[in-house]
Amino acid sequence: MALIVQKYGGTSVGNPERIKNVAKRVAKWKAQGHQIVVVVSAMSGETNRLIALAKEIQAQPDPRELDVIVSTGEQVTIGLLAMALKDAGIDAKSYTGGQVRILTDSSFTKARIIEIDEHNMRADLEAGRVVIVAGFQGVDEHGNITTLGRGGSDTTGVALAAALKADECQIYTDVDGVYTTDPRIVPEARKLDRITFEEMLEMASMGSKVLQIRSVEFAGKYKVKLRVLSSFEDAGEGTLITFEEDEEMEKAVISGIAFNRDEAKIKITGVPDKPGIAYQILGPVADSNVDVDVIIQNTGEDGTTDFSFTVHRNDYAKTLKILEGVQSHIGAKSVSGDDKIAKVSAVGIGMRSHVGVASTMFRTLAEEGINIQMISTSEIKISVIIDEKYLELAVRVLHKAFGLDQPV
Amino acid sequence: MALIVQKYGGTSVGNPERIKNVAKRVAKWKAQGHQIVVVVSAMSGETNRLIALAKEIQAQPDPRELDVIVSTGEQVTIGLLAMALKDAGIDAKSYTGGQVRILTDSSFTKARIIEIDEHNMRADLEAGRVVIVAGFQGVDEHGNITTLGRGGSDTTGVALAAALKADECQIYTDVDGVYTTDPRIVPEARKLDRITFEEMLEMASMGSKVLQIRSVEFAGKYKVKLRVLSSFEDAGEGTLITFEEDEEMEKAVISGIAFNRDEAKIKITGVPDKPGIAYQILGPVADSNVDVDVIIQNTGEDGTTDFSFTVHRNDYAKTLKILEGVQSHIGAKSVSGDDKIAKVSAVGIGMRSHVGVASTMFRTLAEEGINIQMISTSEIKISVIIDEKYLELAVRVLHKAFGLDQPV
Repeated sequence: MALIVQKYGGTSVGNPERIKNVAKRVAKWKAQGHQIVVVVSAMSGETNRLIALAKEIQAQPDPRELDVIVSTGEQVTIGLLAMALKDAGIDAKSYTGGQVRILTDSSFTKARIIEIDEHNMRADLEAGRVVIVAGFQGVDEHGNITTLGRGGSDTTGVALAAALKADECQIYTDVDGVYTTDPRIVPEARKLDRITFEEMLEMASMGSKVLQIRSVEFAGKYKVKLRVLSSFEDAGEGTLITFEEDEEMEKAVISGIAFNRDEAKIKITGVPDKPGIAYQILGPVADSNVDVDVIIQNTGEDGTTDFSFTVHRNDYAKTLKILEGVQSHIGAKSVSGDDKIAKVSAVGIGMRSHVGVASTMFRTLAEEGINIQMISTSEIKISVIIDEKYLELAVRVLHKAFGLDQPV
Repeated sequence: MALIVQKYGGTSVGNPERIKNVAKRVAKWKAQGHQIVVVVSAMSGETNRLIALAKEIQAQPDPRELDVIVSTGEQVTIGLLAMALKDAGIDAKSYTGGQVRILTDSSFTKARIIEIDEHNMRADLEAGRVVIVAGFQGVDEHGNITTLGRGGSDTTGVALAAALKADECQIYTDVDGVYTTDPRIVPEARKLDRITFEEMLEMASMGSKVLQIRSVEFAGKYKVKLRVLSSFEDAGEGTLITFEEDEEMEKAVISGIAFNRDEAKIKITGVPDKPGIAYQILGPVADSNVDVDVIIQNTGEDGTTDFSFTVHRNDYAKTLKILEGVQSHIGAKSVSGDDKIAKVSAVGIGMRSHVGVASTMFRTLAEEGINIQMISTSEIKISVIIDEKYLELAVRVLHKAFGLDQPV
């Protein structure tokens, strides 16, 4: 007998029929003797409907009151799922975030979980009940309703699994697992049976929209076994995201090719090369709440340096303007940018113990005539910035070059 | 400066535009220096939508889970109204029933209020905030969400007014007050400036759908001044429902003509007239959860008695069947019924100190050739059961006979 936390997203509970299907799936696990906690999102479209309603009243909705409104989406789903289970003869009880007491800080619309009271859930589980918890929400120390921000139901699932020391946290979604890359670009992309948290973090941050990144961090921190699987198909074990590097995983050098087309590049040339110059450039950018991703700096021969970095494409115009403002102050020769770029990354925990990943990557791209504009590396990832128009080609050739289209 | 509780029903908050109008109205009262607590219902149609959704999952929705779902309707409205007030520059804060802590028993879908914690609301009022409370809902001692049943937002308003010792509880609705009778039947019907609780109870129970009857009982019990007024028109003071019989009111003998077409009549003849016979007849009816309204019994000369009573028309067939079942057991001659009847009542606290109300009523009906089938009297009400087809005529002539079409 295991204690399993299952999380079902908005599409999986999108209408009464689908809610009944979730109940059937839960019933099956329950029949195998497991204790089940189910975390649900709002029915798909519901959160957007509620936000739109709020915006009809107030263009910039008051965050506290927005959370009061938006949290009702999940509250409806927990009631419906509890009914569906009871209708199938399975005892179940619903909990709002406040009823569990998922204590968060008071950062409305993007609260962080501080503590979870597992006492009531535990009593229900021991009485043989399925516990159903509203995802995405909590309550602060004053009893105000809070929400965890978009995708926060994943975080709720992982946090509950951690609090209850669950054997596994299963994230049901509309894909059947994590793939070596986006199958829409590379039809040969393979589903991964296992992936490590570190790899998943790199994949997630690159736009593999399977899991909310915060929930992965959380799972890694509390050593919660995460499994991503489809709520629509019955076959398959999905992808297990583990904190152990087992032997099997050592075999694959690269686990996947991630990419991101949401970035833009800024370049400052002819900056006097003296201490503190990076801060003088990036300080004003950070002060404007712009996140910077890849940063590279090349020192030239003439005592000046060229400095490049990438930001989210939405922040491109704003960042250019900031730098044009500081250009004369820091004595730079030019400020320019390009918002037609893309980032492609090879991710794999195996690259720690293997050489030659970088050279394979660079050679493969060169053979296709794809120019590399920037390079950034971490222990388990190599990213390159290239012209956006080559993105699909780059993903395809790298996927093949690292043998990801071959069965393991 | 007064402390005023205002309650707005579903129609009054039916869309964003109307919610903004409610905010304007609240703002006006606030600007006059009053402390305001606002109780709101779900947006019109929302509660029905949620119930329908629940029924798609479970034909007989689990009561606890139904309350979890249905209570979200009011929760959305409180957030929206708080935003509308903030947008108008007025500080406001929303409360769910659980956040106030409106403590109820655990009778899901028809809970009763046990206690209200006024502490937090009081602090907000003293800080100059408008307090917005979700109507219709509370929380039991275990933290389960409960609802008070249909129309329960009125009860919430009155209960809050009682707990806060408010100067007045204003019920905003789509009519501008309580009328001497239904203006759709008698165009000359007048709006009453004042009415006593006792009269209002008799009027409400007769189908004047202005206020939920439980809220009126509650107001009477806790001596809360209630005022019914329109949320759409600005003019008018509505109708004040008082617990004081002031001098002005003494002048009117009859305050209004109420009626009800939802009843049916059952008659049992030739019942042996011996002790316990009423119980033998009505016991099985009560056991089937059928409410009995008017009851009359006539003793004949031959040691038998005729027994008649009325029930809700929906219970007519069921009740007939029950009595046909016990007929031989009690030795009755016949069981018959009529579901084409109506009840018309003259209501007025003034009738306590005036004679001749009954005779005026009976004479007026006789003059129109309307046969009276049953009569029932209370201290402040005389009701007659008549053929349904004469209902409108009876209401019109009685309204005129008691001078209700004349200005006071």
